[in-house]
Amino acid sequence: MAMSNESIEKLIKNAKVSIISSVDESGFPNTKAMLPPRKRIGLKEFYFTTNTSSMRVKHYRQNPKACIYFFDDAAFLGVMLMGTMDVLTDQKSKEMIWRDGDTMYYSLGVTDPDYCVLKFTVDKMRTYSNFQSSTVDMA
Amino acid sequence: MAMSNESIEKLIKNAKVSIISSVDESGFPNTKAMLPPRKRIGLKEFYFTTNTSSMRVKHYRQNPKACIYFFDDAAFLGVMLMGTMDVLTDQKSKEMIWRDGDTMYYSLGVTDPDYCVLKFTVDKMRTYSNFQSSTVDMA
Repeated sequence: MAMSNESIEKLIKNAKVSIISSVDESGFPNTKAMLPPRKRIGLKEFYFTTNTSSMRVKHYRQNPKACIYFFDDAAFLGVMLMGTMDVLTDQKSKEMIWRDGDTMYYSLGVTDPDYCVLKFTVDKMRTYSNFQSSTVDMA
Repeated sequence: MAMSNESIEKLIKNAKVSIISSVDESGFPNTKAMLPPRKRIGLKEFYFTTNTSSMRVKHYRQNPKACIYFFDDAAFLGVMLMGTMDVLTDQKSKEMIWRDGDTMYYSLGVTDPDYCVLKFTVDKMRTYSNFQSSTVDMA
C-alpha cells in the first residue's frame, strides 16, 4: 500500500536533512544534504536557503531538473519528489525565508549577494514503504 | 581544509545508509537510500545488492552515470563520489556479496533472477567539511 499524504507530510516534517540532487554539466547526478526546507506549500512547493556561489546553483541555472528526497532509515520509508528548481535572487523571496541567525552563513545579512533562495516545484512523487515503491503524478 | 582519506573512510564505514543517484530517461536525477555497500575496495569500488527489477537498475542500464553519497548530518560532513554504475548479474559476482539472511529479500536465494549486484567505480570525489567543499580527481 502506498503512503498516505499524512504519513508523507510527517516524514518530511521530521526529516533532519533534505537530500537534493541536480545533474551537472557532464550529465552526472550530484547529491548533497541540505538543511530542511524553510517554507513548504503542501507537497507542491519547497523553499531552501543556499549560497549563490554554490555548485548546486550553477547546475540548476544550467539545468533546472531536480529531485529532493526525504527518508527515515529506521522505518524504511522514503519520499522522492521530482520537479524543477528555480534560483531566486529577488529581495522579496530572500526576505520571505530569512531567519535571525542566518548571518552565521551569510555575513552581509538578508541582502548578501551570496545568499539566495532555491524554489522547488513538484511534478512527480515516488514513495517507498513496506519494501514497495509507488509513483504519483503531481503536475 | 579537505577531509583526510582516513576521515572519509571512517564516515563511509559508519554511515547507516548509502544515498544512490541515477539519471532517468527524462533526464531527471533520481535519489534513493540503500543499505551500506557489501564490499568496498578503498575509495575506488563499491558493491551493493539490489533487485534486478528495480527502477535503479533500469536507469543504470540505460545510463551508467551515477553518484553515491555518504553524510553525517550531526557533524556537517559529506562525501560525494561520482562515477559509473555497472549492473552485474553473473553468478560469481552474486555469490561474492551474498549473505545469510538475504533470502528475506530474494526468496529464491543466491541464484534468484531478481537479485543482482551494483558495482560502482569512482572517477571523482567531492567532500564537504567545515562548511567548505573540495574536489579530488580519482580516475
